[in-house]
Amino acid sequence: MNLLSYLPFLVILETDGAKAIGAAIAMAVGGIAPALAIGMLVGKAMEALGRNPEARAAIQTNMILGVAFAEAIGIYALLSALIIAFVI
Amino acid sequence: MNLLSYLPFLVILETDGAKAIGAAIAMAVGGIAPALAIGMLVGKAMEALGRNPEARAAIQTNMILGVAFAEAIGIYALLSALIIAFVI
Amino acid sequence: MNLLSYLPFLVILETDGAKAIGAAIAMAVGGIAPALAIGMLVGKAMEALGRNPEARAAIQTNMILGVAFAEAIGIYALLSALIIAFVI
Amino acid sequence: MNLLSYLPFLVILETDGAKAIGAAIAMAVGGIAPALAIGMLVGKAMEALGRNPEARAAIQTNMILGVAFAEAIGIYALLSALIIAFVI
Amino acid sequence: MNLLSYLPFLVILETDGAKAIGAAIAMAVGGIAPALAIGMLVGKAMEALGRNPEARAAIQTNMILGVAFAEAIGIYALLSALIIAFVI
Repeated sequence: MNLLSYLPFLVILETDGAKAIGAAIAMAVGGIAPALAIGMLVGKAMEALGRNPEARAAIQTNMILGVAFAEAIGIYALLSALIIAFVI
Repeated sequence: MNLLSYLPFLVILETDGAKAIGAAIAMAVGGIAPALAIGMLVGKAMEALGRNPEARAAIQTNMILGVAFAEAIGIYALLSALIIAFVI
Repeated sequence: MNLLSYLPFLVILETDGAKAIGAAIAMAVGGIAPALAIGMLVGKAMEALGRNPEARAAIQTNMILGVAFAEAIGIYALLSALIIAFVI
Repeated sequence: MNLLSYLPFLVILETDGAKAIGAAIAMAVGGIAPALAIGMLVGKAMEALGRNPEARAAIQTNMILGVAFAEAIGIYALLSALIIAFVI
Repeated sequence: MNLLSYLPFLVILETDGAKAIGAAIAMAVGGIAPALAIGMLVGKAMEALGRNPEARAAIQTNMILGVAFAEAIGIYALLSALIIAFVI
């Protein structure tokens, strides 16, 4: 009895098709969390600005800092999708 | 007994079909989070504007900034879908 | 014993069928989040208007801005569905 | 022993059948979020009207605006379903 | 030994069968959200009426408007189901 016996799940997908699905998953799933993170942190910054507008400088600086780091993760996902599509 | 014996789940998908499904996944799943992020952060901006309309300038500037970064991730997803559909 | 013996779950999807399913996924799943985002942000705008109707100008301007960006992601999904259906 | 022996779960989906399923997914799944969005935003408008009926003009105008944009996404889903059914 | 021996679960979905399943999905899944939306918004209208019965005119007008738009999405689903069943 060989190694592949009793495999419950088999997808026959050619290499080019697998690249298309792989790049799609990389960008799609990889973009979920950064976008939600931006929504959460900017939303909280809005709340803080509405409650205490005098703290604008501090809130704005740190919000941009947080957004930049979250966006970076989205860009890693895009980069991975491009590598999967073109370089592999 | 050959290699494929005892495989309970087999999906056969050609490369062009995989591209159609891949582009669909990229845009569909990739657009979930940016849109929700925009909903979250603009919703919070609405709350802040209702509570403190004098802070309009600070809230509006930062809201647009946050929306732009969230929208960017949606555009990465669209870009990935177009690449999967046309370039790969 | 031939190749397909002992396969408990087999899905064979032709390329045209995959396009039909792909376009459906692109628009259906891709429209979930923009619509929910519009619901969230306009709902919050309603709350803010009910609490502070004097801030109508600021709330309305920014609500339309937010709706436009969320709608844009829904339009990307429609665009992807049309591309999958007709161009690929 | 013929080809179909020992296949516990086999789905062979022809292209026309895939179109029927695809159109169904497009409209059914694509209609979930717009409807929920309308429910959310009109519900919030009801709350705001109950708390502050004098703001009726502002609330009603913006509620209709939000409903129109959410309904638009539902109409994109209907459009996609019709395209999948008749045009592809 | 005949063709159907040893098949614990075989779905060969002909086009007519796929139409039946598709029409069922279209109406069944497509009816979930409009119904929930109507439940949400009418429920909120009840709350608002209970808190402030003097606002009856404003609440009732906008509630009917919201219900009409949510109902429209349910009608799109019915339309899609009829098209899938009879026209395709």
